[in-house]
Amino acid sequence: MPPFLDMSDISAAANLREQYRRVRARSVALAKPLSDEDCCAQSMPDASPIKWHLAHTTWFFETFILEKFESDFSAYHPIFRVLFNSYYNGIGEKYPRAQRGLLTRPSMQLVRDYRKQVDQRIIDLLANGAPKSLSDLITTGLQHEQQHQELMLTDVKHLLSLNPLNPAYMRKPPVRRRESGALRWLSLESGVVHIGHGGSDFCFDNELPQHRQFVESFAIASRLVNNGEYLAFVNAGGYRDPALWLSEGWDWLCREELRHPLYWHREKDCEVAGWDEFTLHGLQALDWQRPVSHISFFEADAYARWAGARLPTESEWEYAAATAIAASDGNAAAEESLHPDASSDDGMSQIFDACWQWTSSSYAAYPGYVAPDGALGEYNGKFMVNQYVLRGASCITPRDHVRVSYRNFFGATARWQFSGIRLAKSLHK
Amino acid sequence: MPPFLDMSDISAAANLREQYRRVRARSVALAKPLSDEDCCAQSMPDASPIKWHLAHTTWFFETFILEKFESDFSAYHPIFRVLFNSYYNGIGEKYPRAQRGLLTRPSMQLVRDYRKQVDQRIIDLLANGAPKSLSDLITTGLQHEQQHQELMLTDVKHLLSLNPLNPAYMRKPPVRRRESGALRWLSLESGVVHIGHGGSDFCFDNELPQHRQFVESFAIASRLVNNGEYLAFVNAGGYRDPALWLSEGWDWLCREELRHPLYWHREKDCEVAGWDEFTLHGLQALDWQRPVSHISFFEADAYARWAGARLPTESEWEYAAATAIAASDGNAAAEESLHPDASSDDGMSQIFDACWQWTSSSYAAYPGYVAPDGALGEYNGKFMVNQYVLRGASCITPRDHVRVSYRNFFGATARWQFSGIRLAKSLHK
Amino acid sequence: MPPFLDMSDISAAANLREQYRRVRARSVALAKPLSDEDCCAQSMPDASPIKWHLAHTTWFFETFILEKFESDFSAYHPIFRVLFNSYYNGIGEKYPRAQRGLLTRPSMQLVRDYRKQVDQRIIDLLANGAPKSLSDLITTGLQHEQQHQELMLTDVKHLLSLNPLNPAYMRKPPVRRRESGALRWLSLESGVVHIGHGGSDFCFDNELPQHRQFVESFAIASRLVNNGEYLAFVNAGGYRDPALWLSEGWDWLCREELRHPLYWHREKDCEVAGWDEFTLHGLQALDWQRPVSHISFFEADAYARWAGARLPTESEWEYAAATAIAASDGNAAAEESLHPDASSDDGMSQIFDACWQWTSSSYAAYPGYVAPDGALGEYNGKFMVNQYVLRGASCITPRDHVRVSYRNFFGATARWQFSGIRLAKSLHK
Amino acid sequence: MPPFLDMSDISAAANLREQYRRVRARSVALAKPLSDEDCCAQSMPDASPIKWHLAHTTWFFETFILEKFESDFSAYHPIFRVLFNSYYNGIGEKYPRAQRGLLTRPSMQLVRDYRKQVDQRIIDLLANGAPKSLSDLITTGLQHEQQHQELMLTDVKHLLSLNPLNPAYMRKPPVRRRESGALRWLSLESGVVHIGHGGSDFCFDNELPQHRQFVESFAIASRLVNNGEYLAFVNAGGYRDPALWLSEGWDWLCREELRHPLYWHREKDCEVAGWDEFTLHGLQALDWQRPVSHISFFEADAYARWAGARLPTESEWEYAAATAIAASDGNAAAEESLHPDASSDDGMSQIFDACWQWTSSSYAAYPGYVAPDGALGEYNGKFMVNQYVLRGASCITPRDHVRVSYRNFFGATARWQFSGIRLAKSLHK
Repeated sequence: MPPFLDMSDISAAANLREQYRRVRARSVALAKPLSDEDCCAQSMPDASPIKWHLAHTTWFFETFILEKFESDFSAYHPIFRVLFNSYYNGIGEKYPRAQRGLLTRPSMQLVRDYRKQVDQRIIDLLANGAPKSLSDLITTGLQHEQQHQELMLTDVKHLLSLNPLNPAYMRKPPVRRRESGALRWLSLESGVVHIGHGGSDFCFDNELPQHRQFVESFAIASRLVNNGEYLAFVNAGGYRDPALWLSEGWDWLCREELRHPLYWHREKDCEVAGWDEFTLHGLQALDWQRPVSHISFFEADAYARWAGARLPTESEWEYAAATAIAASDGNAAAEESLHPDASSDDGMSQIFDACWQWTSSSYAAYPGYVAPDGALGEYNGKFMVNQYVLRGASCITPRDHVRVSYRNFFGATARWQFSGIRLAKSLHK
Repeated sequence: MPPFLDMSDISAAANLREQYRRVRARSVALAKPLSDEDCCAQSMPDASPIKWHLAHTTWFFETFILEKFESDFSAYHPIFRVLFNSYYNGIGEKYPRAQRGLLTRPSMQLVRDYRKQVDQRIIDLLANGAPKSLSDLITTGLQHEQQHQELMLTDVKHLLSLNPLNPAYMRKPPVRRRESGALRWLSLESGVVHIGHGGSDFCFDNELPQHRQFVESFAIASRLVNNGEYLAFVNAGGYRDPALWLSEGWDWLCREELRHPLYWHREKDCEVAGWDEFTLHGLQALDWQRPVSHISFFEADAYARWAGARLPTESEWEYAAATAIAASDGNAAAEESLHPDASSDDGMSQIFDACWQWTSSSYAAYPGYVAPDGALGEYNGKFMVNQYVLRGASCITPRDHVRVSYRNFFGATARWQFSGIRLAKSLHK
Repeated sequence: MPPFLDMSDISAAANLREQYRRVRARSVALAKPLSDEDCCAQSMPDASPIKWHLAHTTWFFETFILEKFESDFSAYHPIFRVLFNSYYNGIGEKYPRAQRGLLTRPSMQLVRDYRKQVDQRIIDLLANGAPKSLSDLITTGLQHEQQHQELMLTDVKHLLSLNPLNPAYMRKPPVRRRESGALRWLSLESGVVHIGHGGSDFCFDNELPQHRQFVESFAIASRLVNNGEYLAFVNAGGYRDPALWLSEGWDWLCREELRHPLYWHREKDCEVAGWDEFTLHGLQALDWQRPVSHISFFEADAYARWAGARLPTESEWEYAAATAIAASDGNAAAEESLHPDASSDDGMSQIFDACWQWTSSSYAAYPGYVAPDGALGEYNGKFMVNQYVLRGASCITPRDHVRVSYRNFFGATARWQFSGIRLAKSLHK
Repeated sequence: MPPFLDMSDISAAANLREQYRRVRARSVALAKPLSDEDCCAQSMPDASPIKWHLAHTTWFFETFILEKFESDFSAYHPIFRVLFNSYYNGIGEKYPRAQRGLLTRPSMQLVRDYRKQVDQRIIDLLANGAPKSLSDLITTGLQHEQQHQELMLTDVKHLLSLNPLNPAYMRKPPVRRRESGALRWLSLESGVVHIGHGGSDFCFDNELPQHRQFVESFAIASRLVNNGEYLAFVNAGGYRDPALWLSEGWDWLCREELRHPLYWHREKDCEVAGWDEFTLHGLQALDWQRPVSHISFFEADAYARWAGARLPTESEWEYAAATAIAASDGNAAAEESLHPDASSDDGMSQIFDACWQWTSSSYAAYPGYVAPDGALGEYNGKFMVNQYVLRGASCITPRDHVRVSYRNFFGATARWQFSGIRLAKSLHK
């Protein structure tokens, strides 16, 4: 994890430069298996084209760093300021989000050039050391880029899933090294716990300030709900019983005529046939041992109710995960495949290496939270309404991007992320 | 507040009967100033016709009590089971919510007859005492009826507000007995507090179980934000600056082209002219000393940000209000007018007698919450998503219906309730 | 039919006065079987409340006649100018069409008073004779009122149809005097025909000017398609075969999940059971001999295609009807019931007394058409797009309101009028 | 224009083969100035990606010809049958129209290969002569391809217009050889005229059968309305006066907040500044002499009303154009630019070489019209509702694709075609 380096000497700047090169190169590498056409299309307003991700993350460095630190700053292209502004009202106009797929110009080639030029200018900036004001912003930019790396994969997965040709992003099949063990309940005592990021290394503003929460006693599941367990819910009529669903979720389900998770498929006329699952490795037979993924908050909540349990709050999750991680590192993900593996551990496993885990907590500011000054203050704070927090990380999250205090968040119907279910139970009455 | 009575003797049953008569009669009285036409119309899907409220509250007693306790139960009309079912999937089919204004039949007269017959049958049931299973349900039914009494007034206010004739529900002008004093900040220490209903008297399931929360130190405002203060926000361009708004709120505001609170009016071509406010007493000049009301969560949140403060969490609110109420009763509402009065108290005032107060807390289950069995389990639990909690009560809430642990809740855009703003500030960093 | 009277003498004015009283009284009589609640509700934006019809037709006389002819004109109520303006931009602001059902004020009682006052003022105007400029406007106002009389019945039918209590507007069952005879094809020769109104008596501007059309030889059906024939289409899968439908109609049908005409009903779980039909006489067993009614243009067109025929153009219809009427009067409707009767005639029957008949003609101006000056120019001309012409009249059209040149028009999905199907065939290749 | 050749000998087949090669090659040539990204994107549901056009026109030959005539037919790819089916229910499933831009696979390269293979197979079929059943279908396929060639240009124009970079499809500026002369009114006598295609050469089914229409006397404009004239309408407040618009058009204009033609641009804060126009040659200063283009039916109709004229019916247009063409060929378009030129002719000019011309006629079947058998029967007939006929052709229509009886059609709000205004006036009263 990138520390807030003391950049008083050249060697720290060199480290940051190295890190910059590595993170930035990975974004370009992610686009390798894709054609220019693949990189230009946008499957829904929530998702963005790969090319747009590559340009927007570059825009971030240009707008928030070069414009501030270069004495002779000149924009790569004046229109890019508008085209690749995601949601920063403080920066000015934005190209309409739902039309990002129409930006056939600039070409993918030009965006690659844009990246190269900005990269060179950032490297140049770092040539003579890096004051903290600069290194902090570069670190934020790299963390931001890593967030978009995960989105690049989930967005392109959604795009490819709508294509009847079922194209695979990665040709070789997904690895499965482990078997799914029995789900165990791990109990935790009530008490005052510290929540939020406490150290001096990097975290996002929404993880601050660290503060105290009282947690009543509860139990949490050792692993995520697997496909086999979720299939039992589907087969038991889980998608047809309103008593299991939040009212708004039930209305949504009826309107959208949902009967199963986003990427599950089955031949129409064959109710008994097996299920397939669309993955970044193409269409695969549904593997009951892997964790169920691409589940909305509403589905996670309904499943939990059916299973006689509930979702954890984010305090409970962080308390339990911090306790577990103190005992072992708990995640040993190799990025060899882009689909979550099963787990047979007895302790709290699959914390960071399988799926993000829905909590029952609405995304809100911590007590004492202050948004950063300027346009970067829009990074997190303005989204703190009608979204639910996911904790942990997924099989496609960069390994140096995870933290026990990390807060991811999406609306209750979002399904295109690697989102799964870890159950909890109150021991308090 | 109605206790869970020990109904072992006739006199307790007699008390309940008396209470039943009183609460039920008030609903009918609320419809007195209105014509049958007024009582039939529905101004939006969120609001219901007065006639529908009168029938639905009766349906509640018929369906959840008479059907269970009458040995020779026979429905008043079989179709009423469908027509007046609000949202209970456990009971069966429902007439579409958005079409309630089309139910010109049954007539208002027939609905009055329906009420009379059901009332007589409930009174008969109580003739020979009331076992706890019966008295609990009747108490719930009366609490439910009181909730609808508040909705009757807010729903009809919305309906009348859309009529260019500006009709008044109550002819005489609203009373104002007090002046608006300076807003004072009241500080509270951090610590573990008990949240939720603790006594043996009635409360709704969503106030249970009582449990512990840690609250970091904070300050809370002595009174609600008044119209004068809110007008300063409007005049300062509050509705035109995206930096003040949650992202979803800003999108909503732009889409709906909002520039001021729901019931504020001003002549179009006269930017400098004074403001009027539509009230249940007809159109009135905007009184800067009264609390601002009919404010959405998004507006409350934006105002707070502009004012350098924030909304309280529901734990903070309950902690502060419980502390204040221990010192004084804090509310002396007479139902002489249907519009909130100003406040000049130094302590925490306007807890129950002015406007409901938005909190920053998403509506969620307390740890250990269990929904009741059967269809009544749908009363509260299934709405615990994408809604925000309001605490306190309003100038039109029945005086024996308020509790410090009471949790009201609406979506972030809802504006037709008497909802206002009490500010808070973190003292924790 | 009201002639354009030469109003040089008092007796002509007296006749007009008498006619005025008769037509205006019928509107009030139509509301008799209904409660004030029934008269206030609006079931969809296309339909209006009975009370609104009663007020709007009065507004027409007040705005277009009293305001012009009364030297000391003073409006009944200034807001009524806005509330009861249907669509005349030339008059000024309009209350939103979709919210007419929210106008619980003015009360039904006040609208009755409004009618009485305006009626007296019109009668007073006519006391000393009636110049042509006045009598023409009154005649137009009365024709306008008769159009709304038909809408009052179709609008209230739609409202009552949405009520699960199936209320009847008229208690006694609909009469059927005739049986459905065999459908015969009547051939007409090609040639130049005169289309449009030719006499000096009243007609609407859209029937002018009379002009020539060439009609190729064709055949037209002696009677309308009956319910039995249409049921065969339904049972043959007519609503499931896209080959029978216009593309836009098929999209509409799929979106709305339509399977049968608007007012047909059948028990859900009983595919073999008989059909009922909601009528102004309440729910009735579907009578196969009566003409199918409440059919959209899309349904009429699809049925015709299935039957190996097509809809007539409006020139064909007018040519055939004029020919038939020259031979006999062709319609003997008594307004004893509000549902169309069968026909067993051999000639062209059911011209005016059963259902309006969809033509294949888009509603357009005749060559040389000139819209009237002023706001009344908006009466017809501005609707000449994306609507289809219906010819004839229906069982609820006032008997003195029909003409062979009369052009009714609705959008291709409209189903709440008494609209049916008369088939045609080209003899030209 | 391709005749229905008598294919009894090899040389006729050779001619058809040559024509096939030429038409098919032009489609590929049209994509030349575009990147693969440009060819994949879809700007709105009404428009299709270039790649989709290239594949769909090929699918047409594969599905309607190869499948029928090849004894050992095997599909290029089974999924293509679904992916590139536009709207033929008779063929089976279709990929959702609005998602065509998501088809990043098959790649542009594979579609080029698809074209090559199908082309070879068609050429092979023609090696030994061509029976009429084959040559008729190939001719239809080529006419179909030419229709798509025009759509390729209008669709890509729409796509590029949404890009703030204002990309030009063709770099060099549009040619203007002529000046705009005075608009003259050409009078035509009333009488019976023959309408529809009469010869033995190719035409679409919707141009048949030839039949008689009576046309009252009228006058028609010698040229199309030019940008200067239309700008006068804009400046006179044409887009703000409801009296000029059809009611549905006015609602549309208000909803979409329209103030000028689709591709006109002006700096926001500069009301007096000149106008630019987006063209296939990039952004150009608005040239007042060129015909106004990309006008909806509603705008054409409103302009005509403002100008004291009206749109011609399609009979009037065809009658006038046929008369004019008998005197001169009337169009000498060279495809040197992709934007319409001005006209200074005194006779009826700009018939085929500038913009399609809206008529007042709704798109409907001619008397005696019979749709072809099979899936090709869906080609035209099912669209005959709620669309308006355009006559003539545009500056981008292939020169051998025009006919005086040709009927183009679009909905009343469509603006992305090269559609303009030719005025008419009734001389009949």
